[in-house]
Amino acid sequence: MFFRFLPQNTNFFELFEKQVNFAVDAADCFKEICSKGNIDDAALNKIAAIEHQGDDVAHTIIEQLNKTFITPFDREDIHRLAKELDDVIDMLNTIVSRLKIYKITGVNKHLVEFASVIRESVGAVACTIKYMRDKKHSKELSQACVEINRLENVGDAMRDKVLAELFEKEKDPIVVIKWKEIYQDSETVLDICEDVAHVVDSILVKQA
Amino acid sequence: MFFRFLPQNTNFFELFEKQVNFAVDAADCFKEICSKGNIDDAALNKIAAIEHQGDDVAHTIIEQLNKTFITPFDREDIHRLAKELDDVIDMLNTIVSRLKIYKITGVNKHLVEFASVIRESVGAVACTIKYMRDKKHSKELSQACVEINRLENVGDAMRDKVLAELFEKEKDPIVVIKWKEIYQDSETVLDICEDVAHVVDSILVKQA
Amino acid sequence: MFFRFLPQNTNFFELFEKQVNFAVDAADCFKEICSKGNIDDAALNKIAAIEHQGDDVAHTIIEQLNKTFITPFDREDIHRLAKELDDVIDMLNTIVSRLKIYKITGVNKHLVEFASVIRESVGAVACTIKYMRDKKHSKELSQACVEINRLENVGDAMRDKVLAELFEKEKDPIVVIKWKEIYQDSETVLDICEDVAHVVDSILVKQA
Repeated sequence: MFFRFLPQNTNFFELFEKQVNFAVDAADCFKEICSKGNIDDAALNKIAAIEHQGDDVAHTIIEQLNKTFITPFDREDIHRLAKELDDVIDMLNTIVSRLKIYKITGVNKHLVEFASVIRESVGAVACTIKYMRDKKHSKELSQACVEINRLENVGDAMRDKVLAELFEKEKDPIVVIKWKEIYQDSETVLDICEDVAHVVDSILVKQA
Repeated sequence: MFFRFLPQNTNFFELFEKQVNFAVDAADCFKEICSKGNIDDAALNKIAAIEHQGDDVAHTIIEQLNKTFITPFDREDIHRLAKELDDVIDMLNTIVSRLKIYKITGVNKHLVEFASVIRESVGAVACTIKYMRDKKHSKELSQACVEINRLENVGDAMRDKVLAELFEKEKDPIVVIKWKEIYQDSETVLDICEDVAHVVDSILVKQA
Repeated sequence: MFFRFLPQNTNFFELFEKQVNFAVDAADCFKEICSKGNIDDAALNKIAAIEHQGDDVAHTIIEQLNKTFITPFDREDIHRLAKELDDVIDMLNTIVSRLKIYKITGVNKHLVEFASVIRESVGAVACTIKYMRDKKHSKELSQACVEINRLENVGDAMRDKVLAELFEKEKDPIVVIKWKEIYQDSETVLDICEDVAHVVDSILVKQA
């Protein structure tokens, strides 16, 4: 749909698909770390490498965007899309760093659940990016956006529930500090996914 | 003033007034909860319902904006205005959720004071939105913006004072964690109100 | 380079140089406070005064921008640049306020190190602003941007290291709460400097 406004020599679709695939890789990696309950150097290096590659794609998109003439408002959407996708990967990398720094080991079932919802949401985000190429898929795209919104609400309720439990049961304040941050950051990943859906939605409405 | 640039069939003024009225309702609800010092399900449901309705108006504004041809820069201002007003309501809803999750009961005089300053600031924000319709009110509008800035400074000083007191007197770290977040979030509401005033100010200067 | 697009009667370069000089002053002041390990009222007033003057310049830039006709995308860059430089100063002022509120005294070697890296980064930011005036300096400008990115990575590693140490050694949760915030805010200053570098970079690429 919005390919009409994009120059032929820069394939923004391909770049965004590349970027969102790194987001999916990061969500997979995060899920694996959470279900193992152990962060070894291999896992840390893996997610850091994904973050690095995602950064490179984001940089390429912005660079191409700056060199390319297109209308201002679409520029902004492209800029925001690259930024939000980058933020998804960054936040996942940050949570993993925190788990390491706080020396958190063992499987936490709430975090496993968060990781699973995050993986679903990032998967739906990847769908929206893929469906953007073609007007034929506008119904599927719409459904993916609705699903991302739904998962953000699920995450909100989860965070409220697990925070309430944490403050009720955990007596060690240091542990409260650590997990409060990790749960809130996990929910933030879902917020950012929702922001991506809003940008995609904006692009669609404008092209309708 | 900026009605010159807006299409006649979409009344953005009416939509913004609707949205800011929900912000006022949320601030009223927050003030009531704080002065009662008790969050029952009725209060929780009420502010959640306000948040939901506010969300709908924000969504309508963005949707109308995307369907409407106007100059790019004004689009941006409209987008930011809808976003910031939405953030005011969201933040108030978040604070109330935290009060519930942290099982905070009883009247906290500092929070009552914050709620009162927030109500004043949101009221001034509502004035700016109403005055935007007509150049005749540019003086009143200007005064409302000055007032919002003043209240943000008041909030800054309040937060610093109550945080200092909290860290000095409270020995339970869990209680410190809870109230630190609630006070900082309360001050953030005033920051967002100031951001609204900046957007309104930008719109005015451009139309002068 | 981007002077081609700017009106002759408003010298945005001069305004940005003025603003970035206040950021340098704030970083100097912060460094001095950290190495003395003592915040007296003189130091507090000094950084608050710098913040105030910086605010005035930011306000002037936005005001001039709103009154001036230039292309939308460049407007956005100017707006972002003024905002990010303002955020650098604000965050330094906030950290100093926290040191005061939390009654932190004594020299903390990690904070001294952070203050030194921040001073370097803000210095490099000032270079980018000065070099923007003239295409002849595009190589030096590029180098300054690379340096800012490098310092952000240094800051990231420092924050991770000092947070790990804090959570390992410090047994008083209240102390953990205070220093966690101060270290994270210090690293945020370097993040904002990197954002400035990105904006400058965007402007350059577009003018190339």
